[in-house]
Amino acid sequence: MIYLDWAASAPVYPEVADIVKDVSLKNYANPSSPHREGENAKLMLEDFRVKFASLLGCNPDELIFTSGATEANNMLLYSFIFERTREINIVISGIEHPSVYEPASQLERFGIKLRYVMPDSSGIVTPERLLKKLDNMTRLVSIIYINNEIGVIQPIKQLVNVVKEAEKRFGRKILFHSDITQAVGKININLKEIGIDAATISAHKFGGPRGTGALYLKRDFKLNFLYGGGEQENGRRPGTENLPGIAGMLKALEIRTSIMEKEYPVARDTTKWLIENLISTELCTMIPQLRAPGTNEENTNFSPYILSISLPPLPGEVTVRSLSEMGICISTGSACSSRKKDRMRTLINMGIPEDIAGSAIRISYGWYTTKNELEEFLEGIKKLEKLIPRKNRKFLSR
Amino acid sequence: MIYLDWAASAPVYPEVADIVKDVSLKNYANPSSPHREGENAKLMLEDFRVKFASLLGCNPDELIFTSGATEANNMLLYSFIFERTREINIVISGIEHPSVYEPASQLERFGIKLRYVMPDSSGIVTPERLLKKLDNMTRLVSIIYINNEIGVIQPIKQLVNVVKEAEKRFGRKILFHSDITQAVGKININLKEIGIDAATISAHKFGGPRGTGALYLKRDFKLNFLYGGGEQENGRRPGTENLPGIAGMLKALEIRTSIMEKEYPVARDTTKWLIENLISTELCTMIPQLRAPGTNEENTNFSPYILSISLPPLPGEVTVRSLSEMGICISTGSACSSRKKDRMRTLINMGIPEDIAGSAIRISYGWYTTKNELEEFLEGIKKLEKLIPRKNRKFLSR
Repeated sequence: MIYLDWAASAPVYPEVADIVKDVSLKNYANPSSPHREGENAKLMLEDFRVKFASLLGCNPDELIFTSGATEANNMLLYSFIFERTREINIVISGIEHPSVYEPASQLERFGIKLRYVMPDSSGIVTPERLLKKLDNMTRLVSIIYINNEIGVIQPIKQLVNVVKEAEKRFGRKILFHSDITQAVGKININLKEIGIDAATISAHKFGGPRGTGALYLKRDFKLNFLYGGGEQENGRRPGTENLPGIAGMLKALEIRTSIMEKEYPVARDTTKWLIENLISTELCTMIPQLRAPGTNEENTNFSPYILSISLPPLPGEVTVRSLSEMGICISTGSACSSRKKDRMRTLINMGIPEDIAGSAIRISYGWYTTKNELEEFLEGIKKLEKLIPRKNRKFLSR
Repeated sequence: MIYLDWAASAPVYPEVADIVKDVSLKNYANPSSPHREGENAKLMLEDFRVKFASLLGCNPDELIFTSGATEANNMLLYSFIFERTREINIVISGIEHPSVYEPASQLERFGIKLRYVMPDSSGIVTPERLLKKLDNMTRLVSIIYINNEIGVIQPIKQLVNVVKEAEKRFGRKILFHSDITQAVGKININLKEIGIDAATISAHKFGGPRGTGALYLKRDFKLNFLYGGGEQENGRRPGTENLPGIAGMLKALEIRTSIMEKEYPVARDTTKWLIENLISTELCTMIPQLRAPGTNEENTNFSPYILSISLPPLPGEVTVRSLSEMGICISTGSACSSRKKDRMRTLINMGIPEDIAGSAIRISYGWYTTKNELEEFLEGIKKLEKLIPRKNRKFLSR
């Protein structure tokens, strides 16, 4: 079995699985309990928080542990529900993960104005495009750092600058949130340096355990979160703290931090090689990397771990199924978008025609992926030749 | 170390920790991914759901896996936020867990009317009391099955009958929800037979892993849940399914189901013995078991795993700290209620005077607890003698 669906979920590191087990057996007291064992669990939790924060370049009290990225995105977005009686607006990109897109859409039903900033044809949200969406009633901007479907890396610092200048101009704070799920553990992240105000993290995307994640929230912002029922996480996220999960998430990030910078250029070269080989099959089109104007050799605008291609007129589901039968696991897009309409949103919002978007597949890989496996994937793509006769092929002009 | 804080979190079963590790290492594909490994993970998930449902006496599609009880309670309560423009009311008991109480209170800010049904002086919500709170605009009743602080078991079937009759009378459906967190894995639960429409479950209270729980929701009720971002759990709960956690939760319930009925009468006898011994110390008061009118020998109105006592004028925190220094771990009440006001709510709503409520502690035990440990706890209580001179003792009349 060749697993090329890492963006949906990465294999957990054995060391992570070990520590999850260990902590769950040894430190079972509730960290919010007032006795010695509870206090020990609490000390451990705070120690994990300090270490996790230092790996991400933020203060420990700026980290709120959650059950994952979906919860973190939802809690951040829904904290604006309390502003429903004011005339505020929020701005999200047209290529957000469903767990940002859906709560943002729901907020509209509660009277919050929702604005979309669309990316260019390669998936990039340009500073100019963002600037046009901001006004003195904008309270939140949410732009995904590395998109989970096409791997585009946003020029986040430039976008932060646009927001900072708007804040000065309008004399009002704007919270800049970014879902950094596909970035953590893959590229070096220093939250202070990037300058965003809030960020969403998921453990199982970088070799950590399921059901664990975090929301980073800068000290300057005090939000009123909707879910309640306990004073855990400084009164910001209720529910017994998942100490084993947090221990595992930290362990995974420690491992990743120690090796990700060495892996990155290798992954970049592999992706470059893969793209070249995919082009030469004369079967696929719509590679965002090739559509980006002025993309340099290093492809710094794209994650080397995610690649989106399209094989029209073959529906994405058919390609996925055919490859699955050959033992190759890829996906059509986000595992969180099972409805076709949602699945295609990112590509449609980039201006990709519907027939080509409907044929898109996503290949995502990671630290255990070998070049041999990618070669087998290429062989698999070539086997689709008979399903896509030459006369039916359809390519997208850049 | 003597651990008597099981209601806050129970030690995980070693078999559970093993299976969590196993599944996380072997079945790491995302159950929502469309390829073979994703489908295998999905099959596993649905197999777990079938087995879990059969242990609880419900249909598999009536179970929604969550990150725990707090999330389950919040999502159930907040689904009523969409009714904010109507004149509806919801009824909760005065002794709910904070994760029901807090969202219910927040809903008031959105225009939902909130009514409390108060328990009697032993903590029981009587059918008569509930009946008075229902009218034709009542849409939800939420009453905790076994209270997490005092262990009272509600006459749930009688309460369900009251609601069913009100439904007939008013010609409108009323959702009967119960937080059954402290009941699952301790007493036999058959959801169909009990007749409630929704229930909240937490794994780590019965030897399962942290960060895992479930919401039971009867087929008759289609709720619109607030959090979004993925079509997981039949579109009802977004976020990558925590397959290892769910595997662990099922394993824990399987273990509990095989032994809980044998353990129950033993635990009951132990509690009876403990109560008798506590009384004889002439230090403690306010044992709800003794306040229940007509309580029979078997104490079927109370869980044998939770005991609440008060040692006035010693503040609960002082008693907890003193015992903690002797190596005995108990708590003042719910670990989810760190604010004193919240901590005392249950007892105050039972009519316990504030000074006695403020001195309350909770002892909760489980399957590994030995009589020796409880004897040591009793010795610990007796050592508090010098902190509570005879002239300062204060007792509550029945």
